[in-house]
Amino acid sequence: MLNIGVIGAGRIGAIHAANVAASPKARLTWVCDPVPGAAARLAEFGARASLDPAEVIAADDVDAIVVCSPTPTHVGLILAGVEIGKAVLCEKPVDLDSDRARECQQAVEAAAGKVMIGFNRRFDPTFAQVHARLRDGEIGKIEQLTIVSRDPSAPPVSYIAQSGGIFRDMTIHDFDMANFFLGPIETVLALGQNVVDPQIAEAGDSDAAVVLLKAASGAVGTIINSRRCAYGYDQRLEAFGSLGMLEGRNQHATSVALSTSTFSQAANRVQDFFLQRYAEAYRLELDAFIEAVAGNGEFSPSLADGVAALALADAALESSKTGLAVAPVGGIAEATG
Amino acid sequence: MLNIGVIGAGRIGAIHAANVAASPKARLTWVCDPVPGAAARLAEFGARASLDPAEVIAADDVDAIVVCSPTPTHVGLILAGVEIGKAVLCEKPVDLDSDRARECQQAVEAAAGKVMIGFNRRFDPTFAQVHARLRDGEIGKIEQLTIVSRDPSAPPVSYIAQSGGIFRDMTIHDFDMANFFLGPIETVLALGQNVVDPQIAEAGDSDAAVVLLKAASGAVGTIINSRRCAYGYDQRLEAFGSLGMLEGRNQHATSVALSTSTFSQAANRVQDFFLQRYAEAYRLELDAFIEAVAGNGEFSPSLADGVAALALADAALESSKTGLAVAPVGGIAEATG
Amino acid sequence: MLNIGVIGAGRIGAIHAANVAASPKARLTWVCDPVPGAAARLAEFGARASLDPAEVIAADDVDAIVVCSPTPTHVGLILAGVEIGKAVLCEKPVDLDSDRARECQQAVEAAAGKVMIGFNRRFDPTFAQVHARLRDGEIGKIEQLTIVSRDPSAPPVSYIAQSGGIFRDMTIHDFDMANFFLGPIETVLALGQNVVDPQIAEAGDSDAAVVLLKAASGAVGTIINSRRCAYGYDQRLEAFGSLGMLEGRNQHATSVALSTSTFSQAANRVQDFFLQRYAEAYRLELDAFIEAVAGNGEFSPSLADGVAALALADAALESSKTGLAVAPVGGIAEATG
Amino acid sequence: MLNIGVIGAGRIGAIHAANVAASPKARLTWVCDPVPGAAARLAEFGARASLDPAEVIAADDVDAIVVCSPTPTHVGLILAGVEIGKAVLCEKPVDLDSDRARECQQAVEAAAGKVMIGFNRRFDPTFAQVHARLRDGEIGKIEQLTIVSRDPSAPPVSYIAQSGGIFRDMTIHDFDMANFFLGPIETVLALGQNVVDPQIAEAGDSDAAVVLLKAASGAVGTIINSRRCAYGYDQRLEAFGSLGMLEGRNQHATSVALSTSTFSQAANRVQDFFLQRYAEAYRLELDAFIEAVAGNGEFSPSLADGVAALALADAALESSKTGLAVAPVGGIAEATG
Repeated sequence: MLNIGVIGAGRIGAIHAANVAASPKARLTWVCDPVPGAAARLAEFGARASLDPAEVIAADDVDAIVVCSPTPTHVGLILAGVEIGKAVLCEKPVDLDSDRARECQQAVEAAAGKVMIGFNRRFDPTFAQVHARLRDGEIGKIEQLTIVSRDPSAPPVSYIAQSGGIFRDMTIHDFDMANFFLGPIETVLALGQNVVDPQIAEAGDSDAAVVLLKAASGAVGTIINSRRCAYGYDQRLEAFGSLGMLEGRNQHATSVALSTSTFSQAANRVQDFFLQRYAEAYRLELDAFIEAVAGNGEFSPSLADGVAALALADAALESSKTGLAVAPVGGIAEATG
Repeated sequence: MLNIGVIGAGRIGAIHAANVAASPKARLTWVCDPVPGAAARLAEFGARASLDPAEVIAADDVDAIVVCSPTPTHVGLILAGVEIGKAVLCEKPVDLDSDRARECQQAVEAAAGKVMIGFNRRFDPTFAQVHARLRDGEIGKIEQLTIVSRDPSAPPVSYIAQSGGIFRDMTIHDFDMANFFLGPIETVLALGQNVVDPQIAEAGDSDAAVVLLKAASGAVGTIINSRRCAYGYDQRLEAFGSLGMLEGRNQHATSVALSTSTFSQAANRVQDFFLQRYAEAYRLELDAFIEAVAGNGEFSPSLADGVAALALADAALESSKTGLAVAPVGGIAEATG
Repeated sequence: MLNIGVIGAGRIGAIHAANVAASPKARLTWVCDPVPGAAARLAEFGARASLDPAEVIAADDVDAIVVCSPTPTHVGLILAGVEIGKAVLCEKPVDLDSDRARECQQAVEAAAGKVMIGFNRRFDPTFAQVHARLRDGEIGKIEQLTIVSRDPSAPPVSYIAQSGGIFRDMTIHDFDMANFFLGPIETVLALGQNVVDPQIAEAGDSDAAVVLLKAASGAVGTIINSRRCAYGYDQRLEAFGSLGMLEGRNQHATSVALSTSTFSQAANRVQDFFLQRYAEAYRLELDAFIEAVAGNGEFSPSLADGVAALALADAALESSKTGLAVAPVGGIAEATG
Repeated sequence: MLNIGVIGAGRIGAIHAANVAASPKARLTWVCDPVPGAAARLAEFGARASLDPAEVIAADDVDAIVVCSPTPTHVGLILAGVEIGKAVLCEKPVDLDSDRARECQQAVEAAAGKVMIGFNRRFDPTFAQVHARLRDGEIGKIEQLTIVSRDPSAPPVSYIAQSGGIFRDMTIHDFDMANFFLGPIETVLALGQNVVDPQIAEAGDSDAAVVLLKAASGAVGTIINSRRCAYGYDQRLEAFGSLGMLEGRNQHATSVALSTSTFSQAANRVQDFFLQRYAEAYRLELDAFIEAVAGNGEFSPSLADGVAALALADAALESSKTGLAVAPVGGIAEATG
């Protein structure tokens, strides 16, 4: 049984805390949040509450921490955990600053720290199966990858302002998937759009974007994002290879179809948002982390994967501003997995 | 080049005349209809018009006739054609009276006549492929066959009155498909319904029905019919076997899908009616007939198939009135094809 | 918080025990099974184990019991629970003998007992939505209902022998759905098949069947069953009405599609079996039971529903043996819900 | 009745000749091809054959010409036809040289010539319906357009060498669709790939490509091309708007689905190639041309549309070589239709 402390009791923290509590392989021992009462709300799972991350990290009954606190705290908490030998599962992104993230990576590697980054989509059963069957050769060599990722609705501008912008906050998931499927990326081309919310434009960010990624292998990835999608949480992926295509399609809560005088085969809305769509992915991600701590499998996605995705985000931001193809800095390492 | 005369210039006659005219293997030489002017309307295809079927059947430039006239004339025209050695493609049903149909069959067989019955659905590329793949063993031995066949809207009651009723007029197609897929049928159970048009009930007919067919092989067929279908011409078939299932699904004129805030993946209406849904089937049926005349392949569906389908219709009608399982009279010969 | 004792620690008992344990509205206090150690296996959920149902029913910390024991024990446990005022959720069927089931129903009604029967499919989100939208008038008045229900593989013949046969054991779920969708059934026609396992035929049972149900409303229901299905757990339902059709389609664990040189849009297998397909239905069923005990909503499906489904099973069995249309005994009450 | 001469008796010429012959509104009077015997092969449709385009254009019984000859002859034939008042339907592209195409456009406009360019996909019933429903506001304002267009297999390198390359030969169709859906394009970003055939790389061309188009409206188009596609002719389009998404999906020759122990719902291959996929589009295109000559509707897609698509091809080629975002020269006029 792995004793786990969850740091950050917000929306993602609640997911991880519930999954830890439900896992037959782990015990939720601590929940930490600086907001008084926030951690206690998760106490129904039997954990102790704390206002101070340091207390949690140092606790004897904490073998591993799950970091769900705001992005600026990630690097500090990772390093604090690694320093005293605790395993760390940290939410994305590593940091908004690529240099700081790379320094963190170097420090962790120097200390042989056990760190995994929470790119949950790698664990989604549908996308994971597409990846596995691609690796098994079902469609030959991958040549074109198309990722569509659209959120149901844009977050408030106040969130946008401190999120690092669409590429570091939202596309970062897709950059990791591109690294996961395509390997090292050599060139990034990005077009930002402002079509959703004028306040986002005023805040200097895009609210939709299309990004092209040219891989060292010759394959090209396309990422299509929007902060708003009328029909729900649009999460699709197409891997096109020399022998065929593997698609990960949208998912629906039920399988009802309606036929009437004006149309046939109308299905329900797609899944609403990530809590529904990726519920199983979060469970499987935690399980992979627990297994890695137990010595079964790698800490993957690794901190290096987190840094590589961030490098693509930086390159996309620069390309969207300059109209130039941009090479990502240091992002050309092969993704784990 | 086969010289063909079309007898009957109604809706089905027009389809056959156009297909004959467009075939590189046949020439439309005559069109016949007792209604003055009706045959002439099809003269655009270059054929001569006649009011008298006997003139057409006897014409030197007629090698084969396509019989599209009202049902009571079918037997007479088949026999007239066979008598002087002309090949005959006759629309279904052979006759409304099974005894008369069987006598016709015996006379044709005695004369070694060349007669094919127009069960067009056997030639539908989708259903034909399901049949071929079933015969190829893709789903093992067939155990259950489900046919859904619903017309967009009911014909006028005046038509119903002389059509022989739902089982002989509409279900007859499905009975032939059941013979085609399941082989000899031993027992028929039928439930008639009156849910569409009270006038049809007053005329003594059902306007919807479900029929069960137990085959000698042990397989069971289910036919689900309705005279009215809000979403178009519902034409589906499921063959369930020991190793899997083959489905022939509905078809749509376009492949547009719409996703909105209330649903996703709405497709267009299904194909409207048999002229659209079975256009290709009529072409392929004519082609099979032309090839059979040329000695390439059988005259299939045969007159015996027409008689066998009629026997199932009679049995279904009796079962729907008595609530008893009924054995079809003489309908147990193996279907051709 | 409702204190619940689960009686029977087999496959279904384990599902219910886990759902009780996970429910925020209930506490699993006892698990009972006469096999030594069986109940204790479910003790991980924190309940006490017992070999004696009477001990559990009588326990102060048991407000309600969930009956998952073998069918012959159902009536006795229902009556024992009702006698001392405990609420009962009992797995289907009520009993294999309709007379005994009806006597139980009368006794429970006389005692105003709180009893619900575990027809879990009514709670399946897909089928429940079809039902709700039908009631909302989206497809007008229902005219034809088609239920396909096929198990992945047949149970051992030893199970068949004491199960009451395919109609009372397997089709019973579909009979309840037919009652739920169509209201009172007047006539039953059934065809049994033996196509799966010769041992089942030797044991005197069918291993596939098709059943027609004529409702008092004029609608017709068709049920298509098989004990073996190569592609998984085939669970579908089509409600056809005057204005359109609502379908509940099969479900898949993932949404991966493959296109290759020989085919396109291959999806994964359908869900394997009822544990996966109806996991959510079991949760929602338990929740409805807990709410009914709390006075929010009816105990539905009721014991009367259980008796009505059994009457259809008896009628189907008789029809399959005689080839006659059979009226169900006393099964014409309107289903609850 | 419009008298039409077809110039060029290759693959596309044969399609147009057959459609003219079958049209109730037109008569095929001449077919021209410099290869002896080539034109005569189409004489089965009743037209006269010629080796000399000038003879056909000048013929009294030619009101309009359909230009299906090699690209370098297009401008000359357009101008020759316009000069003596004949209407012209010319296959794409107008020319491989944008300057020459623009001069042609100016000359035709000065002469008020009647010229239409054969961008057949605008007439595809599926894509045309997506466009019409977008214009009707079903998905609000378009924000992202994704076009997937992949050929079954690459043409021989000898063809590539004189085709103008992937952007002018293949993507040109998609550029016209982008103009049709998005209006004026301001910026083009392109990534060429070499993944299919090394000989194409040696010939200096790409054999796969992804292109981004930023429209003046703020919308972004993405075009994904490949010269080879294992599963057939992949022709899809997604229009994403503020209120939803309209998709034009792939099409299949039949609607057969197979379910087995390893997968379910495998459909057949998609349509093989453009002759099948766009057969109806070619018919509707010809019909629109005939109607425009009769004064019913515009000559659309216009010569200006042909020039605009060419400008995007030039920009894409430059971008793919430089890695820079490129503004198309003079390609910013609103597309017709």
